[in-house]
Amino acid sequence: MESRNIRLAVIPGDGIGTEVVAEGLKVLEAVGTKIEPTHYDLGAARYHRTGETLPDAVLEELRGYDAILLGAVGDPSVPPGILERDLLLRLRFEFDHYVNLRPVKLFPGVATPLADTPPENIDMIVVREGTEGLYAGTGGAMRRGTPHEIATQESLNTAYGVERVVRYAFEKAATRPRKKLTLVHKTNVLTFAGDLWQRTVNRLAAEYPDVTTDYCHIDAASMFFVTQPERFDVVVTDNLFGDIITDLGAAIAGGIGLAASGNINPERSAPSMFEPVHGSAPDIAGQGKADPTATILSVAMLLEHLGLHAEAAKVEQAVADDILERLAGWAGRTTHEIGDDITARVSG
Amino acid sequence: MESRNIRLAVIPGDGIGTEVVAEGLKVLEAVGTKIEPTHYDLGAARYHRTGETLPDAVLEELRGYDAILLGAVGDPSVPPGILERDLLLRLRFEFDHYVNLRPVKLFPGVATPLADTPPENIDMIVVREGTEGLYAGTGGAMRRGTPHEIATQESLNTAYGVERVVRYAFEKAATRPRKKLTLVHKTNVLTFAGDLWQRTVNRLAAEYPDVTTDYCHIDAASMFFVTQPERFDVVVTDNLFGDIITDLGAAIAGGIGLAASGNINPERSAPSMFEPVHGSAPDIAGQGKADPTATILSVAMLLEHLGLHAEAAKVEQAVADDILERLAGWAGRTTHEIGDDITARVSG
Ligand SMILES: CC(C)[C@H](C(=O)O)[C@@H](O)C(=O)O
Ligand SMILES: CC(C)[C@H](C(=O)O)[C@@H](O)C(=O)O
Repeated sequence: MESRNIRLAVIPGDGIGTEVVAEGLKVLEAVGTKIEPTHYDLGAARYHRTGETLPDAVLEELRGYDAILLGAVGDPSVPPGILERDLLLRLRFEFDHYVNLRPVKLFPGVATPLADTPPENIDMIVVREGTEGLYAGTGGAMRRGTPHEIATQESLNTAYGVERVVRYAFEKAATRPRKKLTLVHKTNVLTFAGDLWQRTVNRLAAEYPDVTTDYCHIDAASMFFVTQPERFDVVVTDNLFGDIITDLGAAIAGGIGLAASGNINPERSAPSMFEPVHGSAPDIAGQGKADPTATILSVAMLLEHLGLHAEAAKVEQAVADDILERLAGWAGRTTHEIGDDITARVSG
Repeated sequence: MESRNIRLAVIPGDGIGTEVVAEGLKVLEAVGTKIEPTHYDLGAARYHRTGETLPDAVLEELRGYDAILLGAVGDPSVPPGILERDLLLRLRFEFDHYVNLRPVKLFPGVATPLADTPPENIDMIVVREGTEGLYAGTGGAMRRGTPHEIATQESLNTAYGVERVVRYAFEKAATRPRKKLTLVHKTNVLTFAGDLWQRTVNRLAAEYPDVTTDYCHIDAASMFFVTQPERFDVVVTDNLFGDIITDLGAAIAGGIGLAASGNINPERSAPSMFEPVHGSAPDIAGQGKADPTATILSVAMLLEHLGLHAEAAKVEQAVADDILERLAGWAGRTTHEIGDDITARVSG
């Protein structure tokens, strides 16, 4: 038990971000933790007001927290890439969130769009690399706007960056009943990067003799997520493939309204950040239609990361129970109502 | 009506490639075309025997054909990337197959893995760019095999390359009842390439006022393929995103056994190449288990490309009828049996 309060930085962000984060905090408070939240108004509104995305001073301040809870950033009024790169991705990079942990799990009672797929068939964890690959942002444009324009993007992969995330994935796989790790990549086309990833998996496999390893091209993996999701236990993949496959994972596990994620710095040299996989959804913002469950499950991941295992389990159980109620006709609730219902369960 | 015979180069390739191509040729012959096939033994076997993937002399010979029919290349005995890059991708690049055309269409009677999805909800065409992007193959590795290794891959995008494929997609969309074109990319992260693609779509949109344009990030698109496939009519996207999304498309449209593709050179400065989307499937090769339907549908695309519209329609209709029969208990047929059944229909 910590004697001091846990300090949490909260970045509600844009669109439905503010709505879902409010419910997440309600649950966090109700579960009885000594967590002290501080709000940061980063996002589209601040950008329009001051031109700032993530001022250096704020970045340094955030570094002092024990964890960060983020809603969603992005707004159609801001050109694509600005808030994503300068705020969200900057946080992931500066705080070295090299593990982007995204469970893909079908809760009993949730309707999956896949026919004839029982919950036990969809139960995996995607370990997405969070600090390298095509997200490095390197590249450029020449003769922009002319018929001779050339635009490039570069995927940067380092032995250091790949090994640490692959090792994390092996450790994770070793704790699970099936102990299976699948590398997802495109080694037959991205031969340089793919070779580094595949060699790293092969090398570390020797250290984890209990873990079975497998390989799947990203195109085939996308197909198997839909036709044979039971193939996957722990998936390790690069930043971009992880982005794609976790949205697909969210879809098969009942939708983006339930998909949680953690941007983890396993060495704890900077705060980890927890956020729903969904975006700011400007089309439904302000209408109380957003499902806060993804944020509440992200709060459970946050509690787990902080070592508050009992509280994390309580929140997860409350969500599972709440989801089962939907079967009994509780669908159509507002953001607040879902938050209240889950809050009531954790307070009980 | 051509007076001379149409010259077709046939590359059965590896694994099930040879099995499915044999059925495709049977149908082609039965439908009554003056097509004269010549076989090329490119693939893993030749590579092991002679070390050759695609000798320059063979490449030049292939250039003289009216079209190419390809089965599949790739074998676990060959390191990843060799046959893919030096044979398949080399053909696409050298023959400037900048349109990789991949219909995603649920035939009535086919079981989709998606619950409650009627055939009319899955009917799109993906126009995948075929000669640029991350498939350019540029990149490299430094300090390979050491803890300081860095491996890079580069996505190369040109105004020339993007405009021509986007224009093709607009033309295609203009011929379809819904006239909707969706750009799939990741403009918020791949800002340089995404900007070029988005600006190109915006600019050409002015020339096609009847076509509605839309944009979808690749991660969201992967989700929507599963939850709302009816969102899509014509999709235009880059080489890698197109690779991923067309496998996913194949999955939702009843599986890779039915997915056809054309690598098109619209200016006909070199032969176009038709191939099933599936790979060589070494695990089931030689067992007569492969479904040749994807190849037969690729043959229909080939006929269409050669201007043999009646023949193309006949093959497509035969496939549609054959698929309906499966409902009546015709599943479990061998590769030959399916080929024979479709052949009988086109000869009738
Ligand atoms: C908003 C965007 C930059 C982000 C990403 O691509 O990582 C999002 O899609 C995600 O998955 O968290
Ligand atoms: C075999 C491979 C190189 C190829 C590709 O990535 O294009 C295949 O997946 C395809 O979609 O035709």
